[in-house]
Amino acid sequence: MSEKETLLDLLLASPQEFVSGEEISRRLSVSRTAVWKQINKLREAGYEFEAVPNKGYRIVNKPVRIDTLTLLKTLKTNIAGKKLKVLETTVSTQEEAKALAEAGAPEGTLVVAEEQTGGKGRLGRKWFSPKGKGIWMSLVLRPKQPLHYMPQLTLLTGVAVCRAVRRTTGVMAGLKWPNDLLVDGRKICGILLESAAEDEYVRYCIAGIGISANLDPDDYPDELKSVATSLKIEAGHPVDRVQLIAAAMEEFETLYRLYQQEGFAPIASLWEALSVTLGKRVTVGAASGPVTGQALKLDPHGALVILMEDGRELPVFSGDVELRR
Amino acid sequence: MSEKETLLDLLLASPQEFVSGEEISRRLSVSRTAVWKQINKLREAGYEFEAVPNKGYRIVNKPVRIDTLTLLKTLKTNIAGKKLKVLETTVSTQEEAKALAEAGAPEGTLVVAEEQTGGKGRLGRKWFSPKGKGIWMSLVLRPKQPLHYMPQLTLLTGVAVCRAVRRTTGVMAGLKWPNDLLVDGRKICGILLESAAEDEYVRYCIAGIGISANLDPDDYPDELKSVATSLKIEAGHPVDRVQLIAAAMEEFETLYRLYQQEGFAPIASLWEALSVTLGKRVTVGAASGPVTGQALKLDPHGALVILMEDGRELPVFSGDVELRR
Repeated sequence: MSEKETLLDLLLASPQEFVSGEEISRRLSVSRTAVWKQINKLREAGYEFEAVPNKGYRIVNKPVRIDTLTLLKTLKTNIAGKKLKVLETTVSTQEEAKALAEAGAPEGTLVVAEEQTGGKGRLGRKWFSPKGKGIWMSLVLRPKQPLHYMPQLTLLTGVAVCRAVRRTTGVMAGLKWPNDLLVDGRKICGILLESAAEDEYVRYCIAGIGISANLDPDDYPDELKSVATSLKIEAGHPVDRVQLIAAAMEEFETLYRLYQQEGFAPIASLWEALSVTLGKRVTVGAASGPVTGQALKLDPHGALVILMEDGRELPVFSGDVELRR
Repeated sequence: MSEKETLLDLLLASPQEFVSGEEISRRLSVSRTAVWKQINKLREAGYEFEAVPNKGYRIVNKPVRIDTLTLLKTLKTNIAGKKLKVLETTVSTQEEAKALAEAGAPEGTLVVAEEQTGGKGRLGRKWFSPKGKGIWMSLVLRPKQPLHYMPQLTLLTGVAVCRAVRRTTGVMAGLKWPNDLLVDGRKICGILLESAAEDEYVRYCIAGIGISANLDPDDYPDELKSVATSLKIEAGHPVDRVQLIAAAMEEFETLYRLYQQEGFAPIASLWEALSVTLGKRVTVGAASGPVTGQALKLDPHGALVILMEDGRELPVFSGDVELRR
C-alpha cells in the first residue's frame, strides 16, 4: 500500500471529522511537510479537502473516476462501447480512436479520457477538456452507407446524445444544427464526426463527443464563460458520468439500428423535435457566402432547408449557424 | 563523371553501332566483368541493350524519366501540379500526399513516383505500379464544397483523365462508373479519391491516379493479363508521360473551375458522353445486396441511376459495377 493510499484511508475513515496534521504525521511516521505535499497531490488528482487551522483536514469530495469495469457493467449495448479504452490523459481521444480505426478496430470501439491535453473541435479549434470534469470520448463507426449519407449520421449522433442527456440528468438540452447541444443558448456539448473515405466507401468514421459534465463556473477560461455551461451548473448537482456514457451508447445503438432498418425519416423527426434551430432566423456561412433566412426543416438528405427572404428554399449541408434574436 | 556515365557516353555516341566489350574495357580501363556489371546496372535502371556475340553492345532504348524541371515547364496550369514532388520510389503516392496534406500542403500539390512498392487501389487492393512504366500520382485537393458533393468530384476527375488520355495518345478510353478508364473492356487507369472530413467540412481530398502508360504485355502478372492493358499496347508505341501528366492537370484544372462556376450539370454531360457504362445491363453490389438493371443516367447529385426490372429507378452512390454482356 502506498503512502498516498494510507493518508487517504486515514481521512476516509472519518469523513465527517477533521484529522489534525500532527496526528497524520504521527500515524504515518512522516513529516508535516510530507503530509502537506500529499494533500496537494490528492487535490491535483481531484480530491477536495477542507483545511481549518488548529483542527486539521477533512475530506469534502472524492474524485469520481470513470472506472472501466463499472462502465462495462453499466453498458446495455451489443457493440457501442463494448470495446473500451479508458485513458487517464491523452492528447485527443479523436486521434487515439483514429489510430485504432486505422489499425482495424471494430465498429463500436470507444475511447474515453479523463483529460485531453490537445482536445479538438471543429476547424482545428481547441476543445477545453479539463481533468475529471467532463466526458471526452470518441466512438469508432464503420457505417455501411455510402459517404453521401454522412449528414444523416451527424444528425443521428446529436439526437442520441441529446436524448441521453435529458434522460440521465433532466437537463433539457436542445440541438443546434447540425449537432451541438445547447441549454438556454449556451453550449453544453460538442459533437464532431470525422470520416475517412475512398470514393463513396467510408473506411471509418469517428464520432467525437465532448460533454461538459461536472465543470464549475470557475473552471472555464474567460472567453468561454458567457457561451458555455455544464450539466452540473444546469442541474445543480454533479452528474454520474458513467451513467451518462452508458446512456449515450445505448441511445446511439438504438437509433443507429433504427436508421439502418427504416432509413432517415424517423431520425429526422426526432431531430426536429429536439431542435432549437428550426423556426429561428439564422445566418449560415455557406461556401458562396453568408445566407440569412428562416430555418425551415431538414430535407430527406439531412440538409437544413433555409427559407430565404426572396421566398426560395435553399438546402445547406455545412457552415456555422448563427441564431439571430 | 562517374564510370557509369562514361560507359553510357560511349554507347550513346554511336547509337546505331555495336561497341565491343573489349573496346569498352580498353577505353574505360576496366575489366570485361566490370563492363558486364555496368551493363546490368543500366538495364535495371531502365536502359535496353542489344548484345550480340563477337559484335558487342548496342543501346536500344533509353529510360524516359519523369523530370521535375521538364514537367514544371510543360504544365500550363495555375495550381494543379505547380507544387510538385517527383520520387524515384515510394510506398504509395497516396500516403505521401496524405502526409503532405496533413502538414498543410496547398491545393494542387502533386506527388509523382517512378515506382510504388505498396501502391493501393480500392478496398485495400494492391495496385501494380512497376518502375518507370506508368504514371503513379496523387493530387492534393481542398474543395470548398461540402462532403456531400464528393461523388461529383470523383466523376469530374475521371472525365479529366479520360480527356487527357484521348487528347495526348489518341487511345479512345471510356469511363466505367464511377471513374475507371477502360479500353475494350480492359482497365487502363484507376482513380481513387480519398477524403478526410469533419462533419461536412472536407479537410482535404487526395485524387490518386494510376495510368498504365508504357507497360508491355510481359510486365503484367498472370492475374492481370486478361483484365488490364496499357496505353503503349493500345497505341502501338510508348507514350510521353510528362505530356500526359501535364494534360491531365490541365484538364482537371479547367473542369474544376467550370464545376465551381457552373455546378455539376456540364460535368455530368461530359461524363455521360465518355461513359461505357450507360445503356448497359449492370449489376451493382449495393449495401442492401446486388442490384441488376440498366444503367440509365447520372442524377443531379452524381449517383448512377439504375432502371430496375420492375420499372423503378434506383440511384446508387457506391459499389462495384459489373458490366453484363
